[in-house]
Amino acid sequence: MDLPAVVQQPPMMKQLHDAAPGDDAGLLGQRIMAHARVLSAHTETAGMMTRTYLTAAHHGAAAQLSAWMQEAGMQVRRDAAGNVIGRYEGNVAGAPALITGSHFDTVRNGGIYDGNLGVLLPIASIAQWHAQGKRFDHAIEVIGFAEEEGVRFKATLLGSRAVAGTFDQRVLENQDAAGISMRAAIDGAGLGFSSTDIPAAAYRPEQVLGFVEVHIEQGPVLLDAGLALGVVTAISGASRFLIEISGVAGHAGTVPMALRQDAAMAAAEIGLYIERRCSGSAGLVGTVGQFDIPDGAANVVPGRARFSIDIRASDDAVRAAAVDDVLQAITGIAARRRVQAAIRKTHEAPGVPCAAWLQQRWEQAVRRCGFPLYHLPSGAGHDAMAMAAITDVAMLFVRCGNGGISHNPLETMSAQDAAAAAQVFSALVEHFEVSA
Amino acid sequence: MDLPAVVQQPPMMKQLHDAAPGDDAGLLGQRIMAHARVLSAHTETAGMMTRTYLTAAHHGAAAQLSAWMQEAGMQVRRDAAGNVIGRYEGNVAGAPALITGSHFDTVRNGGIYDGNLGVLLPIASIAQWHAQGKRFDHAIEVIGFAEEEGVRFKATLLGSRAVAGTFDQRVLENQDAAGISMRAAIDGAGLGFSSTDIPAAAYRPEQVLGFVEVHIEQGPVLLDAGLALGVVTAISGASRFLIEISGVAGHAGTVPMALRQDAAMAAAEIGLYIERRCSGSAGLVGTVGQFDIPDGAANVVPGRARFSIDIRASDDAVRAAAVDDVLQAITGIAARRRVQAAIRKTHEAPGVPCAAWLQQRWEQAVRRCGFPLYHLPSGAGHDAMAMAAITDVAMLFVRCGNGGISHNPLETMSAQDAAAAAQVFSALVEHFEVSA
Repeated sequence: MDLPAVVQQPPMMKQLHDAAPGDDAGLLGQRIMAHARVLSAHTETAGMMTRTYLTAAHHGAAAQLSAWMQEAGMQVRRDAAGNVIGRYEGNVAGAPALITGSHFDTVRNGGIYDGNLGVLLPIASIAQWHAQGKRFDHAIEVIGFAEEEGVRFKATLLGSRAVAGTFDQRVLENQDAAGISMRAAIDGAGLGFSSTDIPAAAYRPEQVLGFVEVHIEQGPVLLDAGLALGVVTAISGASRFLIEISGVAGHAGTVPMALRQDAAMAAAEIGLYIERRCSGSAGLVGTVGQFDIPDGAANVVPGRARFSIDIRASDDAVRAAAVDDVLQAITGIAARRRVQAAIRKTHEAPGVPCAAWLQQRWEQAVRRCGFPLYHLPSGAGHDAMAMAAITDVAMLFVRCGNGGISHNPLETMSAQDAAAAAQVFSALVEHFEVSA
Repeated sequence: MDLPAVVQQPPMMKQLHDAAPGDDAGLLGQRIMAHARVLSAHTETAGMMTRTYLTAAHHGAAAQLSAWMQEAGMQVRRDAAGNVIGRYEGNVAGAPALITGSHFDTVRNGGIYDGNLGVLLPIASIAQWHAQGKRFDHAIEVIGFAEEEGVRFKATLLGSRAVAGTFDQRVLENQDAAGISMRAAIDGAGLGFSSTDIPAAAYRPEQVLGFVEVHIEQGPVLLDAGLALGVVTAISGASRFLIEISGVAGHAGTVPMALRQDAAMAAAEIGLYIERRCSGSAGLVGTVGQFDIPDGAANVVPGRARFSIDIRASDDAVRAAAVDDVLQAITGIAARRRVQAAIRKTHEAPGVPCAAWLQQRWEQAVRRCGFPLYHLPSGAGHDAMAMAAITDVAMLFVRCGNGGISHNPLETMSAQDAAAAAQVFSALVEHFEVSA
């Protein structure tokens, strides 16, 4: 991420304060913001928000979350993956639970709301119900997922995959930068479990009514639309490729334009095709995030160029069609320019639709609270993606300030927006009905 | 340079052997090729052609050139810049001289004809005249310029600038990779001069009738045209820039296409504009030789992109117009895409036209030998560029095989083409008339 460039830009701050929640909600918003600040003290590097899996900072945050959950009237436990799980019992003990939550690990030098918001917000709502002595026919479980970002062990969604029963045992052998394996880190974490207990952390589907996740948007869509909240339609699927173009290097002064086989200009043309092809289609995005000319020199016509392609769409068919067109364009451009293109697929993940009935619960809650209804896809991955393996999922996005930047210390969110989200979450829980 | 890519490409070898010089010329061609091979043994790294300024390999090559010059009946001297100068006296001692020559330093891992050809070829012709007892009204001086490429001390054209009287004293303080200054290298070279004698190495204009240089083309134009030889019209002027685009970094999944300020796509669009603008205009070329996204990641919309621009043309007005259009396009593209473009000019050199009367001498000689007449500009710099400060200059290019590649061990030239060039050089000298 590029801090100076972002600072230089005027943030796209339209109507940041248009959400006007009531007094109760206002207090919830203040409390969420205060807790986010307190929790951010649990960091590996002072002055930065860095909290990776099973470090001292991570354990400190887990202890703080447990304490707040207990204060809010929840029974708290941890599991073998290090997740922090609070259960707010229903009117009948042992009732199936509506699960909510998000991750409390962070990227290096990231923001304090990414993930954490989705844990702190339901704790605040539950604390209010607890103070009022209010319970529901269903239980509510709040899970602080121990790991989503994949920073320390280069494997993502560890916490939610453990809960969903899709934890991949092979990643236990992954090592961090110091050569410590994930297995050793878990076994030595003092969780009261060993890494071999992870499969037992999986929920049974009949215990679960559904999974709802509140998350900061991490993009500029709500900010640009002037809205505090949006209901997520799907978590986009993604296709990634690395492309290497081989042309013919030559002297920048002596090879006439018509005789060139310039690898970089072929790559540039492909990049602009991707941009054009992915524009104008809702929920579809295409990015060339890496581009270089190996051993490039100002006075040499590039013989090689390398670049990455990342294509995402909420609809898998839309993504597949875009990928097909891009691959066909690469072939055509390479042939016309007499260069070779080596194409390597590096990643492919299908989209995860949010369940229609559970989206409706968010929609009803948004309307009930008097906010405008807005839908958007999630281009980033979230714990809900893993939870979809065991239950229906749906998400609520909260406006991301400062141009929509995230994974960056400039990530920000207003107390008003946090309050609006808490109000809507409370409305969803208070009027929750399972799909017929 | 990209060896594998070049090797994979079929070389554009059209009619490599169409030149069919007579028996005498054939012998000259064989001799030039043999001498180029012998001289290539003077290298810093066995198996590679690397001969930088005032190294042991460089001194060895100078001694070998001196020996061949002496055998050819020349008086040989060195000057304070390390140039090797052979004089083939005219019918009257002390007559003004037609000067020819080129450089005998090389790039690292370069070709054996680049520069060296322009020294070895006139020595071969003169050796033949010497054997025949033939002299002319004018003297002929062959200069093996000690330094042109600028590899060791990051300063180019040292030898020809010393002869032309335009040697920049400040570069004496430049240091090589080992921290040795150029001044110390010259003072310790055993040349019989110190670096303070360099100004005295300059010729007086009245000693000189003109400067003609034979050089391998270092490009694919003659190869593509199926011709052994071409008369150079001008050495192109060049403008170079480094451009840094600042946009806004963002998440590749969460920032919709319409809200992006993608620095790399702006750079790609500018690159393609440069390519288009510089195509279709004879003698004009434009190159983006460097392109990178600092800290780029596959899943991040680029917030920054950097690239180089190199624009050259034989006609300065053509180059200036292209540069103006490109700079205007950068401004327009940056504004439309809401990114900033920082533009830094890194180099600006005017073109050096070859003198019309001296071009005519080459043309007459080409016709006399029965070769087709062909003109082309030189996109690369040559010693003739520096010599233009003291006298009129003109050049003859010799076809470069293997796709036109140079500054590379794959650089190649046929004995037939060397013979053709020697035949034309001999014809030029034998019928030389100074401009009226």
